[in-house]
Amino acid sequence: MAFDDVVRLAQRRGFFFKSAESYPNSPAGFWDYGPLGLAVRSNVLELWRRLLVRRDGMLEIDGAQILPKSVLEASGHVQSFTDPYVKCAKCGSVYRPDKLLEEKTGKPVPEKLQDSEYDSLLAQAGVRCSKCGAPLTGTGRFNMMFRLGIGPLQEEAYLRPETCQSIFVDFPLLYKTQRVKLPFGVAQFGRSFRNEIAPRQGLLRLREINQAEIEVFFNPGKADAPRFAGTAGDLLTFQPPQGGPVTASVSDSVERGLVPNRLAGHYLALLLRFYEAAGLRRDALRLRVLPDEDRAFYSKAAYDLEARLSVGWLELVACNYRGDYDLSRHAAASGTGFDVDDDGTKVVPHVFELSMGIDRTVYALLESSMGGEGERTVLSLKPCIAPRKVGVFPLVNKDGLQEAAGELNAALQDRLDSFYDESGSIGKRYARADESGVPFCVTVDYDTLKDGTVTLRTRDTRAQERVKSDSVAERIVSETAFPPIRL
Amino acid sequence: MAFDDVVRLAQRRGFFFKSAESYPNSPAGFWDYGPLGLAVRSNVLELWRRLLVRRDGMLEIDGAQILPKSVLEASGHVQSFTDPYVKCAKCGSVYRPDKLLEEKTGKPVPEKLQDSEYDSLLAQAGVRCSKCGAPLTGTGRFNMMFRLGIGPLQEEAYLRPETCQSIFVDFPLLYKTQRVKLPFGVAQFGRSFRNEIAPRQGLLRLREINQAEIEVFFNPGKADAPRFAGTAGDLLTFQPPQGGPVTASVSDSVERGLVPNRLAGHYLALLLRFYEAAGLRRDALRLRVLPDEDRAFYSKAAYDLEARLSVGWLELVACNYRGDYDLSRHAAASGTGFDVDDDGTKVVPHVFELSMGIDRTVYALLESSMGGEGERTVLSLKPCIAPRKVGVFPLVNKDGLQEAAGELNAALQDRLDSFYDESGSIGKRYARADESGVPFCVTVDYDTLKDGTVTLRTRDTRAQERVKSDSVAERIVSETAFPPIRL
Repeated sequence: MAFDDVVRLAQRRGFFFKSAESYPNSPAGFWDYGPLGLAVRSNVLELWRRLLVRRDGMLEIDGAQILPKSVLEASGHVQSFTDPYVKCAKCGSVYRPDKLLEEKTGKPVPEKLQDSEYDSLLAQAGVRCSKCGAPLTGTGRFNMMFRLGIGPLQEEAYLRPETCQSIFVDFPLLYKTQRVKLPFGVAQFGRSFRNEIAPRQGLLRLREINQAEIEVFFNPGKADAPRFAGTAGDLLTFQPPQGGPVTASVSDSVERGLVPNRLAGHYLALLLRFYEAAGLRRDALRLRVLPDEDRAFYSKAAYDLEARLSVGWLELVACNYRGDYDLSRHAAASGTGFDVDDDGTKVVPHVFELSMGIDRTVYALLESSMGGEGERTVLSLKPCIAPRKVGVFPLVNKDGLQEAAGELNAALQDRLDSFYDESGSIGKRYARADESGVPFCVTVDYDTLKDGTVTLRTRDTRAQERVKSDSVAERIVSETAFPPIRL
Repeated sequence: MAFDDVVRLAQRRGFFFKSAESYPNSPAGFWDYGPLGLAVRSNVLELWRRLLVRRDGMLEIDGAQILPKSVLEASGHVQSFTDPYVKCAKCGSVYRPDKLLEEKTGKPVPEKLQDSEYDSLLAQAGVRCSKCGAPLTGTGRFNMMFRLGIGPLQEEAYLRPETCQSIFVDFPLLYKTQRVKLPFGVAQFGRSFRNEIAPRQGLLRLREINQAEIEVFFNPGKADAPRFAGTAGDLLTFQPPQGGPVTASVSDSVERGLVPNRLAGHYLALLLRFYEAAGLRRDALRLRVLPDEDRAFYSKAAYDLEARLSVGWLELVACNYRGDYDLSRHAAASGTGFDVDDDGTKVVPHVFELSMGIDRTVYALLESSMGGEGERTVLSLKPCIAPRKVGVFPLVNKDGLQEAAGELNAALQDRLDSFYDESGSIGKRYARADESGVPFCVTVDYDTLKDGTVTLRTRDTRAQERVKSDSVAERIVSETAFPPIRL
């Protein structure tokens, strides 16, 4: 399915809405989750908690989104979290010069150009303002953090550009209060904010982002994972900067230097298991190895987990071996000790990070599960990810069938996310359920009143079978359960 | 327990941390949830979803936090979401004149004073700057929204000051896509932001707030709740502006005009059931009826749900009959139709709102459940609210007991939030669990290896009993379950 089909379905069924859509000229890059999208997101996060956070005994926190300037100076964002932009001198329209050049020439633009180099390339390529046709020059830098002022004195602060800064800043308190030993992970789901210059890709380029980040802290002298044996045999597929893809087991990847250490290999494997359990195919996932020039100077290794979608390979997760950069910077700037005792040695922990884009993840799951023939759309979301687990329908709206179906729905509610629907033909109700990703439907009919059986219909096979009404809950609970936590 | 005791415990065990605490001079009014606080908050929200959102078949959404100026002009916040402030002309310190006057005189200051009236009262009372001693005058107004600029053109926008604006703005899309009929509720949990002038009450006065809001949309011509019969007999306790408290059933409250209609009465009753299920005592809860002069001009009735705590009666929820103010304003400002068809009549729905402060709710649950004797602190959180359900301990760290306890913990993980602890004496481990609100502990000892039994210890009774290891999961799942959804 194509990007536009997914967005149309998402808006029609209320997975997502463009934020403040009722208002003319509401700004780009902001989306609201409707009921179905929020339910999918919640299920994705529950799976993330089970297969990454709780499986590994990680700590989860939720930090404030507004951070003082001092924190973001220490992290380097105040100085260098910038994108190039060029403003039309005639009509005031704003563009990213790299994006304009890519569109005009069809070729990628090298990273880290100087402003004057952009101006030369824009002139060479003859790029002009798409609104008024004037030539474009005068590339400048725009800091992508949203700046705000605290209190009447307007103390300078920012919306966090990545959730991980809360984790780094809280590290000493977490270490002190949570009785943990290296290595351990800290996880956080929440918003981060990027004041994109001109976001145009709908859901895929947001100014307000849902991130689920994991920072694993470890002693660089022993970068091992206690449960390494559980993932050592998993296969990882890498796309190196040059040449074709390389597939190797986690242990082989460590030996061949494809990953910097066993700990990193272990978490990459867990991450891939998570995405497979969520519904993406292994053969549509790869770890793109970032070339040296695309990595931050402090990064010792970096991978983008990408999924193959209609829009091309889409980055879902940034995986980054950040060394001790963050903790050392915050230690120096705050004057607080960020070093810890690891079996008698003082060490500033190193960090391996899994930074997941949850909005893109939800998008990828929708696109990958969208199918059907002709007018019929089916969203074959994994049952554990599906926004609702079962719809309960009376065959007709009379003779007590509504009451019986309502009663069954109420009885299911404690254990399942079920809903009741009595409008339109049964066929139409099945079609709506298919399009919303609901894996099961139950129809209550005249036989139900006689013998207590109902029709259980399965989305993916379209099979209908007759089952005892009082066995439905158990059956659907087990078929829609999350996978076990144990490795 | 006193406020300071709760904050000390919360910080010691990692329920909350002051945000960016490592940094000197980090701004007031921002807190991070640590692992235990976040777990309590998640459980509070799951209970809210069950007893209010899903019980009632409400829609839940999650909207963007940044809203364009146009939306917040329509809602009235750009013009009038202000607090008075006064700045010391000598040293630049900033204060709220009403708070200064209350502290100095010990008496409440009338609402809605003019700036010049504040100046007169400050002079009369002889209030001076607490930093430098200079007299204070020149009261002004400060808009409490955080303002920010979108993109390089810096289009004016704000962090939402209340989550409900996302619900109002999305109303036409929700109505169109979600196949709903009046009355129906829309719920949202998320952040809102208030740039408080000088927040001093720690956790209770935040600049970044977790809100769980419910907006019930209804036809004012038939302000009834379909499930009214389920709550008609519930008792509500009101504190009117004058005189003592009044207790009446929901149906009596409707008849006596204590609530404006059956729908409002029904939701107030559900709200009280929620707080009781979460762990607050009915006799420590009241609905304070807001006097006319404290209500917004569009509000037809307003109640603060308050809990009696060490800090006095603390507002946890603002309940507000907002009429059609919000939808009508957004309709006019956006040029979009916000009216709907209700059985053949065109109507702009009225709104009854339950706006819960989740941070204060978590605080109230911690304070109310904190007890113990001498050095021993016990947090008697309801089992469904407790941050962890069970701790699994090996009696000693040898002879295979660690492995057996680890195995039991891993087996429990799929069904329960369990944790493993092997450090310190069993007594110390019980004490830590008590202080963290863990309702059950399981100790694995030598008999476990022989006959498969373990010691199950209950926090609130301190009783210890011998039970079969393989019955532990079932037992604790059932004792820590959320209450049923059905009314």
